[in-house]
Parts: sequence; C-alpha cells; structure tokens
Amino acid sequence: MIIDCHGHYTTAPKALENWRNAQIANLKTPELGPKVADLKISDDELRESIATNQLKLMKERGSDLTLFSPRASFMAHHIGDFNVSSTWAAICNELCFRVSELFPEHFVPVAMLPQSPGVDPATCIPELEKCVKEYGAVGINLNPDPSGGHWNSPPLTDKHWYPIYEKMVEYDLPAMIHVSTSCNACFHTTGAHYLNADTTAFMQCIQGDLFKDFPTLKFLIPHGGGAVPYHWGRFRGLAQEMKKPLLTEHVLNNIYFDTCVYHQPGIDLLNTVIPVKNVLFASEMIGAVRGIDPTTGHYYDDTKRYIEASKILSAAEKQQIYEGNTRRVFSRLDVRLKAKGL
Amino acid sequence: MIIDCHGHYTTAPKALENWRNAQIANLKTPELGPKVADLKISDDELRESIATNQLKLMKERGSDLTLFSPRASFMAHHIGDFNVSSTWAAICNELCFRVSELFPEHFVPVAMLPQSPGVDPATCIPELEKCVKEYGAVGINLNPDPSGGHWNSPPLTDKHWYPIYEKMVEYDLPAMIHVSTSCNACFHTTGAHYLNADTTAFMQCIQGDLFKDFPTLKFLIPHGGGAVPYHWGRFRGLAQEMKKPLLTEHVLNNIYFDTCVYHQPGIDLLNTVIPVKNVLFASEMIGAVRGIDPTTGHYYDDTKRYIEASKILSAAEKQQIYEGNTRRVFSRLDVRLKAKGL
Repeated sequence: MIIDCHGHYTTAPKALENWRNAQIANLKTPELGPKVADLKISDDELRESIATNQLKLMKERGSDLTLFSPRASFMAHHIGDFNVSSTWAAICNELCFRVSELFPEHFVPVAMLPQSPGVDPATCIPELEKCVKEYGAVGINLNPDPSGGHWNSPPLTDKHWYPIYEKMVEYDLPAMIHVSTSCNACFHTTGAHYLNADTTAFMQCIQGDLFKDFPTLKFLIPHGGGAVPYHWGRFRGLAQEMKKPLLTEHVLNNIYFDTCVYHQPGIDLLNTVIPVKNVLFASEMIGAVRGIDPTTGHYYDDTKRYIEASKILSAAEKQQIYEGNTRRVFSRLDVRLKAKGL
Repeated sequence: MIIDCHGHYTTAPKALENWRNAQIANLKTPELGPKVADLKISDDELRESIATNQLKLMKERGSDLTLFSPRASFMAHHIGDFNVSSTWAAICNELCFRVSELFPEHFVPVAMLPQSPGVDPATCIPELEKCVKEYGAVGINLNPDPSGGHWNSPPLTDKHWYPIYEKMVEYDLPAMIHVSTSCNACFHTTGAHYLNADTTAFMQCIQGDLFKDFPTLKFLIPHGGGAVPYHWGRFRGLAQEMKKPLLTEHVLNNIYFDTCVYHQPGIDLLNTVIPVKNVLFASEMIGAVRGIDPTTGHYYDDTKRYIEASKILSAAEKQQIYEGNTRRVFSRLDVRLKAKGL
C-alpha cells in the first residue's frame, strides 16, 4: 500500500470559498454573515471534486490512500477572532470527514485547528476531540504562526502549546507543523513562508528540550523539512555548540519529514542524510506546484517517481517510506487499517 | 588563488563589544554614551586577533584571500535609530579596512550599511561611498530585514531599495543579502533567521522583475541559498505557474550562491542543481558553526574539503568556484588583484 501523508482539500466546490468570502466580508457584523447552514454542498459535488482531481491523480500515479486535511492556505488563522476560526475549522473538517466517508478506501481525515492569534491554544481542544472521536481523524495540522507571517506566538517549545501536546499524547496523534497563507508581503506563501516555517520549527526543537517533557510527541515537518536536510551539517554543528545530544537522540525520535520535494536531487539528498525511519511519503498534491517539469515531462509533485528512481533506497526501504513509517507514526491510521484487514 | 567571499570580523578585540554595549546602554541618553574616540584598538591588537584566528585557519585550510565584512550578527540594525547605526557601521567598517591594510594579501573589505528600521535606505549611501572610495570595499552586505526578525520592510523588489541598487550599479558592487541577529524568539539567528532570509530573498526575486530594472545588479545569497537548491524543483515550478521565464534567464544572470553549506551531501546538491557560474567559494569562518564534525574529524565549516572531494565538479570548475566566479562578480576585486599582477 502507498500512503500519501500530506494531502489538502484544495479542490473543494466553489461554494466553500464563497461562504468564506461572505464570512470575511462580515467579520465586524457577524450577525449579517452567513450561517453554517447556508453552505450547501451535496455528496455528488464532493464526489466529483475528488474523483476528477486527487483520486484521478492517485490512480494515475499509483498511490492508494491520502491523509486528507483542509486546504492549508485557506486555514488563514489570522483572519477574524476565535469564533471566526472555530466556525471555519468546523466546516472544513466536516467536509474532509465527508470525503473520507464517500471514499473510505482512499481518504482518511486529518484535522485543522481553530487557532487564532493571541488566543490560548487550549481553545482548540473541543474541535480536536470532535475530529478524533466523531470523524476518525488520525492527525492534526498545527500552525506555529497563526498570525500569518508575523511570528508573534511563542516558539513551539513554549508551555503555551502544551495543552495541545497533552491531547496529542493522550490520543497518540501526530501533528504536521504547517503554516497557512502569509499576510506579510515579504513572504511568498508557498515559496518562502512554508519552507521558513519548516526550518524554524525544527530549529526551535533543537534549542528546546520539548521531547523530554513529551517523549511520545510526534511532529511531521512537511516540504521535506524546509532547509533542514540541505543544511544537516549546520544543524548538527549548532546542536553540538549548544551541548545538546546528537540529533538522532535529541529530535529524531519525535520528528519526521515528508517527501514533498519536487525534484530528484532534493529527494536524493533527503534520503542521504535523514534516516529512512524518519521519512514519510507525501506529495501535497494537488497543491502549490501543479505544472509539468519540462526537464522530465512529469508533474513536479509526482514525488513517487523520485522515490521509485532513487538509487539510495532499497525496495524494502521504499516500502517503509510508502507505508510502514506512516502506519507507525499515525498509529490511529494503523488501527483503522488493521480493522479492515489491511 | 582561493578566495573566500564570505568572512566576517567575528574575532574583533573585546573593546569593540564593550564600546557597543556602552552605546546600547545610552540609547536614550546619547550625550552620556561613548564617543567614537573612546574606542581604542591598536594595530597590534588587530593583528593578533586575525593572525591567531582567521588567518591561521586560512593557512591551515589553504585559502588565500577573504572578503571581509563586519560581524553579521553584530550589525543589529534593529537597535537604536539611524544615528546609532551610522556610528556603529562607521566603526565596524573602519576596523575591517584596517585589517585589510595590515594584511593586504589576505583581506579585502566588504561594507556593512547603517540601515535602520523604517528609515529610507538612501541614508546609507554616504557610508557606502566612503567605504568604496576610501576603504576600497568591493561589495556590501544588505540586510533585507533591519527589524531583526519582524520583516516589516518592503520586499527587495520594492522601489524602497532602489537608491542602494543605483549605487551598486554605478560602482558595480555586488550585495550579499545578509540579515543580522534575530530579536524574534521564534527565529534562532543562525539556525533559522539566516536561512529563512536567504530563501525569502530568492523568492522575492522570482516574484518581481527587479533585474529588468537593473540588468547588471548582482545579489550573492549566502549559506548556499538557504532552502533554494534543495527545493529547486519547487522554485522552477512556482516560477512556471507565475509565467516567469526559466530561472536561468529570470534570476541566474544576477543571483549567486555561496558554498557555506557544512556537509558533503549539501555541497553536492548545490553543485548538482545550480550552474557552476553561479557558485562562489565561501566558508563564513570563523562563524556560526565552529566545531569539528565527529563524522569526518574535520571542521564543519572547512568547506574547501567538500569542494575538493566533489565528484561532480571538474578541476577547472573547482577553480572557477574558488576564484574565477568571484573575480567576475566582484569586479572591483578583480581590478585590485590585476593591479598587483595577480
């Protein structure tokens, strides 16, 4: 089985975006804004939005199952207050759940959280619990910068975040550390903010001792870990200067990287420096980079091709990246698959 | 000849730091603060601080010449106002000039600018001109985020920065895009802020059309380009979505990367995806990562070893990275070397 651990519902019917725009237009007059019940998307519309997009590409490329969360750039936690985020997260999570019910063989939900800048992350717990208990979510997306590029929340190692971590540990729920749209003109969302956040989160974990407090906490750093594998020597050296243990002990029992790196040399570097056990297959398809690479004739984000072509990985290691690691890290997914005899 | 294009005066005598601390202590009462004349560092002290540190390592490692600028993390443009930055930049630039006079075979100055958050960059021009005309500076360091991690200046493609670019073009002066200390707790200075800034600057250049306005402008992106080479497929794909020309045409006539990547696989990736003509040898020694890599037994930042061991580069290409490219990009350095018959 090939599991893509990083998919977002980027192709939701237009009605979702229209609803969100109406919500944003009435931020200061929520009584005039749309009600949740105003959003009407039929199962047929959901089915079509998936069957002609993600599922079509999954079949063409040969992946079986996608961990599926709301569109990352649409989370936009910086917009409005907690109530705005809360309503929006509930809607988006329900849609991903409905997709998982319509295509139970192919999609399993991962939850977004109703984060809001300056608001205690503990406020996210009811939505988190609902998604786990009612929707069968197997992971969450945690935004380390709900401000959208102003970075005014404490580092991930701060106790500010501990209420979320306590729930993650309780449910054995991994978090993908994933920012949303940048509202800072300096940072292009998918070309700078996403990658910077990945690098930033990893370095915060090196600086702190978070995994002493939460030995079973699991972070998945997307986009191949931002700049981390390319600068693996720098990170090893910085940890050494800080008198931290080797990175293998200090963070690699808790941090994982996905394979959303859109060219062969990048994937090869990832698999040269990061242990196989820490790499999880992903494409983030259909996402930031949708075109065909003229140098290969294939989609940039068809990351399975790069894994297949890898001369660094054995067949068994490839299978570990495709399935074994993801089932180990997302233990609730493993339980769910085993219950189906998979 | 082997030229290291990225060296900072990180080993200046303690008197410099003491003077800066006194300046900072009197930010609101500058009349009580230290005068420039209060800083006394003798030639012997300068000589010793270099001979026992950078020059010693240059000789051991086999590099000949370093482009030498004030300590990046000490620029701290976010501290105080323009007058504070102006006095501090003048002091630091003069020290690098004096080092270049004491060791004319081994050090050539690159200038820091007296940037200050929210202040028109045109105010930096007098210091820039002084450094070029009186000190023989062959390049500048340009901080894209003088706020120190709050990123509230416009992107590098904004007309805000054009007064600097006009002078750079006039003097054919390249700029290394280099941030300083982070005062944002989210960003570790050398493990996140530096790399994020590199990635951010590159993506800003993809988004804009700066090099149409300034076809001869030259940016050197340090630390191997942050996350850029590792995500080269992503950047090519994003440029394609934006209907920009191929990166080779859109930015690679103007943007260069240094080799401050502290392990062999990273250097190999850099030289796999970035054209040789765009790579300039550098170590940033003595800098962020000063230790010995236990996996090799050599200094992490002894980047010459990685170039030497490269199986991707021919001997001629290595020489291009060591010398040819740097003399081409830093044309004022080339003039200076030719005048010495080098």
